[in-house]
Amino acid sequence: MRTIEWKNGVVVTIDQTLLPEKEVWMEIRSCREMAEAIREMKIRGAPLIGAAAAYGLALTAYYSEARSREAFLEEIERSAEILEATRPTAVNLFWAIKRILNRVKNAEGDVEALKSAVIEEANRIANEDAEVNRKIGEYGSKLISDGDTILTYCNAGRLATVDYGTALAIIRVAWEEGKRIKVIVTETRPKLQGARLTAYELMRDGIPVTLITDNMVGYVMYRGLVNKVIVGADRVVRDAIVNKIGTYTIAVLAHKHKIPFYVAAPLSSFDINSFARDVIIEERSPEEVTYIGSIRIAPVGVNVLNPAFDVTPMKYVDAIICEKGILTKGDLKKMIKKAGDK
Amino acid sequence: MRTIEWKNGVVVTIDQTLLPEKEVWMEIRSCREMAEAIREMKIRGAPLIGAAAAYGLALTAYYSEARSREAFLEEIERSAEILEATRPTAVNLFWAIKRILNRVKNAEGDVEALKSAVIEEANRIANEDAEVNRKIGEYGSKLISDGDTILTYCNAGRLATVDYGTALAIIRVAWEEGKRIKVIVTETRPKLQGARLTAYELMRDGIPVTLITDNMVGYVMYRGLVNKVIVGADRVVRDAIVNKIGTYTIAVLAHKHKIPFYVAAPLSSFDINSFARDVIIEERSPEEVTYIGSIRIAPVGVNVLNPAFDVTPMKYVDAIICEKGILTKGDLKKMIKKAGDK
Repeated sequence: MRTIEWKNGVVVTIDQTLLPEKEVWMEIRSCREMAEAIREMKIRGAPLIGAAAAYGLALTAYYSEARSREAFLEEIERSAEILEATRPTAVNLFWAIKRILNRVKNAEGDVEALKSAVIEEANRIANEDAEVNRKIGEYGSKLISDGDTILTYCNAGRLATVDYGTALAIIRVAWEEGKRIKVIVTETRPKLQGARLTAYELMRDGIPVTLITDNMVGYVMYRGLVNKVIVGADRVVRDAIVNKIGTYTIAVLAHKHKIPFYVAAPLSSFDINSFARDVIIEERSPEEVTYIGSIRIAPVGVNVLNPAFDVTPMKYVDAIICEKGILTKGDLKKMIKKAGDK
Repeated sequence: MRTIEWKNGVVVTIDQTLLPEKEVWMEIRSCREMAEAIREMKIRGAPLIGAAAAYGLALTAYYSEARSREAFLEEIERSAEILEATRPTAVNLFWAIKRILNRVKNAEGDVEALKSAVIEEANRIANEDAEVNRKIGEYGSKLISDGDTILTYCNAGRLATVDYGTALAIIRVAWEEGKRIKVIVTETRPKLQGARLTAYELMRDGIPVTLITDNMVGYVMYRGLVNKVIVGADRVVRDAIVNKIGTYTIAVLAHKHKIPFYVAAPLSSFDINSFARDVIIEERSPEEVTYIGSIRIAPVGVNVLNPAFDVTPMKYVDAIICEKGILTKGDLKKMIKKAGDK
């Protein structure tokens, strides 16, 4: 079962806020419901958010009662705006919406033909994500040796994508190839995606995993318990990667301990015409920090910072693994030069 | 009110596991109860553990029915063993117990005289701790400038000591002197002493404090939001400081961002005849990581690392503030040389 599926006007996906206690599959039937699920992080992970946004537009298309091309396109654009307002940092959201809008604006025929175009393109985005991740896994596995202990962060797994995952696709392929690897995952405060989602995914696949708190990263590196780091990315800009808050801390520690730091990200996360300074870092609610479930863990009224992401300068990144292969620092420079030439 | 007080056969102290929701003062009436409270971290913080252990022996003395000097000393030594088995890393525990044992063994007179000696010495240890911390605050405040934002970690505050705190004593004195400072505290997983205790203490004193999760330390330093770090220490050895797990991660990040990293610790935490390699790092239960209160935050059966402390090599420490003044790297070298000469 994929993390997200289209079933004739119903999108079926897992409510990630309830894991690992409960595995609840939600049925989403409108674009507004989809936007709400993304905002509340029931659906999260940059590639999955892209596919979910595409399916959000597919739901609008499916249930549209528009009679004219203009009315239909207006409805789709209104839905696109609602989706775009959910989470500002991950680029896949905007990428997927743009792709659907381009497709439908260029499609010919009546409203029914346009509806089909939207739904077809959404399905294509989801299918491609699964294929892309499989390729990321296959390329990335070349970087993994028998006996490695890999530190990963947050959830760049099946649950962050349509299937396989990005960072976890690499770990899965290496494992399937018979490499005896171990994984350390840090819990990833405040929303605990590492503890709740990554540990859960890896345990289900039988891959050895050890959970630590985020502040133990220095300790495990100092003790020599880690020899590679692989994380995902919400956005790859020209001079940095943007990923879950805490990624930068891990990157600095990896650099200091001479541990390779790899980023797994599909090209749909690339935005190499932008710079780190252009990225809006989403600030989320203080209650994510001060409560765990219904338990308050800090004094009432305490001031809180809660940025959802941070920026890791490219100098800390040893390679980026995408569906085209392993991009070294040199490859990235070439890619940027080429983009700049356009 | 001090964090711990002796009231004729009853030790009164706050149950720190219930803060900040409830401020519950416990009455402890036996050494076994005291040992249990230390093990369960109802009483925590290296200097406070020292005073609590001393009072544990005072309780044994107070209620002793021994008729002979030998029987009394045997009882005290048995209590000392129980206390020593609670938490292996902080040195103040052993220091305080040793001090009481030395005093009582050298005391003259009958059992009543020995009882008085134990209780008197325990009270002296507690009084000295309060005085020592006040001095740490006064010396350390010289390092703080108007407008500073200071990052602190875990709880090196009043609740970790008999009064004032160590790192927080410095912050308190600087604030009392009228320096307009701000504090950032990280929540300190797994037991959340930063969120639960430090934020609570500072808010009560009206000192501006912002809470972050542990993985945001890199982010706030990268953004230039911090210009000094002050932490406590559970043990100062010749080549390192031993403190709450996560301290090393902060020290590496501070070093990378050229932010001074200060350690506040009374001389009772110094153990400069030992090296980092000699220190036993307490491994605590996995449930501290996988549960918050009654809420499970990770899959059942997941493998967990939970070291309570880590080791920060002395090269990351810019100065140690103790009751004798500010010890620079040069002062520490001299102190070590002197110790080595003995």
